[in-house]
Amino acid sequence: MRADALVRRRLLIDAATELFCTTHPAEVTLEAVAKKAGVGIATLYRNFADREELMVECAASALRRAVAIAQQALADFADDPAAAWEGFVRGLVDLGVGPLVPALAPEHLTELPPAVNAVRDELAGSISDLLSRAQEAGLADPSLSGPQFMAQLIVITRPPISGVLDLDPDVTDRLVTALLLPPAR
Amino acid sequence: MRADALVRRRLLIDAATELFCTTHPAEVTLEAVAKKAGVGIATLYRNFADREELMVECAASALRRAVAIAQQALADFADDPAAAWEGFVRGLVDLGVGPLVPALAPEHLTELPPAVNAVRDELAGSISDLLSRAQEAGLADPSLSGPQFMAQLIVITRPPISGVLDLDPDVTDRLVTALLLPPAR
Repeated sequence: MRADALVRRRLLIDAATELFCTTHPAEVTLEAVAKKAGVGIATLYRNFADREELMVECAASALRRAVAIAQQALADFADDPAAAWEGFVRGLVDLGVGPLVPALAPEHLTELPPAVNAVRDELAGSISDLLSRAQEAGLADPSLSGPQFMAQLIVITRPPISGVLDLDPDVTDRLVTALLLPPAR
Repeated sequence: MRADALVRRRLLIDAATELFCTTHPAEVTLEAVAKKAGVGIATLYRNFADREELMVECAASALRRAVAIAQQALADFADDPAAAWEGFVRGLVDLGVGPLVPALAPEHLTELPPAVNAVRDELAGSISDLLSRAQEAGLADPSLSGPQFMAQLIVITRPPISGVLDLDPDVTDRLVTALLLPPAR
């Protein structure tokens, strides 16, 4: 693929990912994605056969970014465990794990294409490594497995309905901060 | 209203509430509600002009039940603070606060009809009383207001998507248990 074609493909994936983070999935139309990326709808269709294919590429891209965040945290862990652990968790939150998983995950996570599932397995491994280290350092609840921790992070960072934001506009941040409190504080 | 008419109205509200707890709101049709209640659709329309009116009645009914749960907990508090506080929180979870608020709340909670808003204000007062007592007893995070606590409870008990349940089928219960951990544990 030519360099400018690669750039346009990247723009489309980033635009779609941003829309899936901020908008109800049903309202993320291919037209809206093309418009946000600043390309024509024909360019979108040259890159992605359909909405499903675009969603899989968004999921793969987000998973690769999550792997990079986890690897950075693993590299930084020895120097400053608390900062590395918090950086990892807040990195996943900023990546949009709360809105992206409900928007992009198929009915069951195992239904992802094999190439995407391989990245997902790599991420799961990094998360388990990092959680073990955080648990050894007294930074995380020692009773939780990697998948259990991720399930909690996805649930608490899923965008709240507006009525809940009326009750507390900072509810997501407050829940993330509580999740980051060391156990047996 | 005759006794049997009241019973049918109650059956319809309970059936609708149960469906809103277990089914995506878009799939809760009036036909499904009538069928679950074991009455004909004409009976439903004699009781509720439209879906909106039925939803308001479901919200009012759930709010009244929540007030009763809070008042019970306030009455029991002096005897056993920890059991009263946990009973209140788990009572709201069992009532379906997580699915019902997103399903039934209008865009902003203040848009409820005045009669329903009065019950909501009464509930908010009871929750603030109870939370203050729990905080004094060292059972709840002293930095949280009543609305902030409710926002957290609604977020963590909203039904997770199936992919998240693949990661941890018990994620909701685990988050509620964590919310109930005394602070500065």
